[in-house]
Amino acid sequence: MKVPDKILAFLKEEDNFLIATHVDPEPDALGSSVALSTGLERLGKNTILFDKDGVPDIYRFLPGSEKFRTAIPSSKDSFFSVILLDCNTPERAGVNGLDFRYSVVIDHHETEKEFGDIRWVEPRAAATGIMVYYLLKELGTEITDDIATNLYSAIAIDTGTFRYSNTTADVLRICADLIESGANPAFISQNLYETWSEQRFLLLCIALGTLQIRDSVAVIHATKEMFEKTRAKPEDTENFVSFPRMMKDVKVSVFLKELGENYWKVSLRSKGDINVATIATIFGGGGHKNAAGFEIKESLESAKETLLKKISQHLYSFRK
Amino acid sequence: MKVPDKILAFLKEEDNFLIATHVDPEPDALGSSVALSTGLERLGKNTILFDKDGVPDIYRFLPGSEKFRTAIPSSKDSFFSVILLDCNTPERAGVNGLDFRYSVVIDHHETEKEFGDIRWVEPRAAATGIMVYYLLKELGTEITDDIATNLYSAIAIDTGTFRYSNTTADVLRICADLIESGANPAFISQNLYETWSEQRFLLLCIALGTLQIRDSVAVIHATKEMFEKTRAKPEDTENFVSFPRMMKDVKVSVFLKELGENYWKVSLRSKGDINVATIATIFGGGGHKNAAGFEIKESLESAKETLLKKISQHLYSFRK
Repeated sequence: MKVPDKILAFLKEEDNFLIATHVDPEPDALGSSVALSTGLERLGKNTILFDKDGVPDIYRFLPGSEKFRTAIPSSKDSFFSVILLDCNTPERAGVNGLDFRYSVVIDHHETEKEFGDIRWVEPRAAATGIMVYYLLKELGTEITDDIATNLYSAIAIDTGTFRYSNTTADVLRICADLIESGANPAFISQNLYETWSEQRFLLLCIALGTLQIRDSVAVIHATKEMFEKTRAKPEDTENFVSFPRMMKDVKVSVFLKELGENYWKVSLRSKGDINVATIATIFGGGGHKNAAGFEIKESLESAKETLLKKISQHLYSFRK
Repeated sequence: MKVPDKILAFLKEEDNFLIATHVDPEPDALGSSVALSTGLERLGKNTILFDKDGVPDIYRFLPGSEKFRTAIPSSKDSFFSVILLDCNTPERAGVNGLDFRYSVVIDHHETEKEFGDIRWVEPRAAATGIMVYYLLKELGTEITDDIATNLYSAIAIDTGTFRYSNTTADVLRICADLIESGANPAFISQNLYETWSEQRFLLLCIALGTLQIRDSVAVIHATKEMFEKTRAKPEDTENFVSFPRMMKDVKVSVFLKELGENYWKVSLRSKGDINVATIATIFGGGGHKNAAGFEIKESLESAKETLLKKISQHLYSFRK
């Protein structure tokens, strides 16, 4: 992977960076941001880490994640350049309306629109963490054990800990380097997969109880009532959508989370060549081939019906 | 890792090998064996693959696994040399009593006894697949895509697909090589983890619905009625007991499966230093420190109560 010269020159010339990642952040967003911030600070730069939603408790094991702020210090915007990381629009990062010195985009998601003075978008990178790894190498920053833990976590989450089709030889070689720089695979995996709260697990049990399967599509949901009953947190449903994938005959897995009355956040996962990003796009969302999402304002039953119809059409056209 | 010269010389000099792996085989046993057999055959050697229990259906995706035999051709033993792979006693491989030309042990398990004319035992290797990889490299065998798939699967299963503490930089670099030789991480992971039947998944959902948590102990159960309702098979509950381990505060996970009226099979899993084998022994069962089991003839509620009391005592004595 070639890091654009423009990006390198920019990071070397400028001194003050606000690193903003997307709302509802996961370890690729958080880990990549902390790693880039730490790397730039080691080069004598000044950075601010920003995530509008803050760091979910379950990801506070990422060293340095305590530096995230949920508000941008006043009158900093025109003085700082913004780096959008793991996202590519100011809206997605919650920094729209602000007037930064320059804007940079570093992301592995498909572009939603052409935002940014300098753009580095690599949809073929398994994680933004991979891009930040190459970037820090080019900048000559030492990969400390904290940076290694953040980048390994970022790459682990976005490859399903090396189970998805984006797991390449390069991905494993980079992670081997990160282990040698101090990342601990077992510590990271335990923190990613075995630190569920009792409330979160109870919510999963109840959500799995709503399972419906139709035409190779599995659907589960979680209502606000279920959240209240189990006292689970909004972010606790991370990864719920992956469970029905265990079934051999399930090609697409869907999870609906109630955001408000007749208002749902929908997560989609698929296997193999089935592209759920194209389905999410129909509903105004986005994502990757095997992992995408969108929001829908309909009743639960109507949302499921609408979605199942679209997925069926897609699966049918795929089979032809 | 250094492959002993004796092993290399032996494999070059001899022509006929019976490769025997352990009963109740999993992908490290099967994949390592097929890979070694394929490699030796490419060097013009004659090999027989043997597993007393045969290849479980779920592992038939391993290319070449159809070559396994469950019986040893008569009068072959004195003509063939045996290679015990992923095990180190003839009993464990089900070949005791036979009189082979020479015997070789290649294994990463701790030695049970000193069997074999030539022994290569590496308890620090994450998988026997790692040892076979180095062996084939030393023998100059091309790593074909079938060999790569078998070795990658072997290493994946024994490292929890790179989640256990035996996941080293070396492990990831070898797997990177195997990807370049044709192993497909997503195909392999799907075959290892995503081949559940709908019936099995439904039973899991219902079983998780019975979750009770008391004093760091999580308990779930499955009744005969649940099996009938979901049409799941008796063996489908494999691994159910592991799910509650996801919870951070759960130290012991218990799964009860109804065998008959007031008759239950109990599986126990623990984290860290908590020894569930000692608990299983109280009830006439056995197992390892973190995985044990027993059978109990009591009503469900009474069985749970008796067991929870014993576990509490054990946890309490452990805390002191």
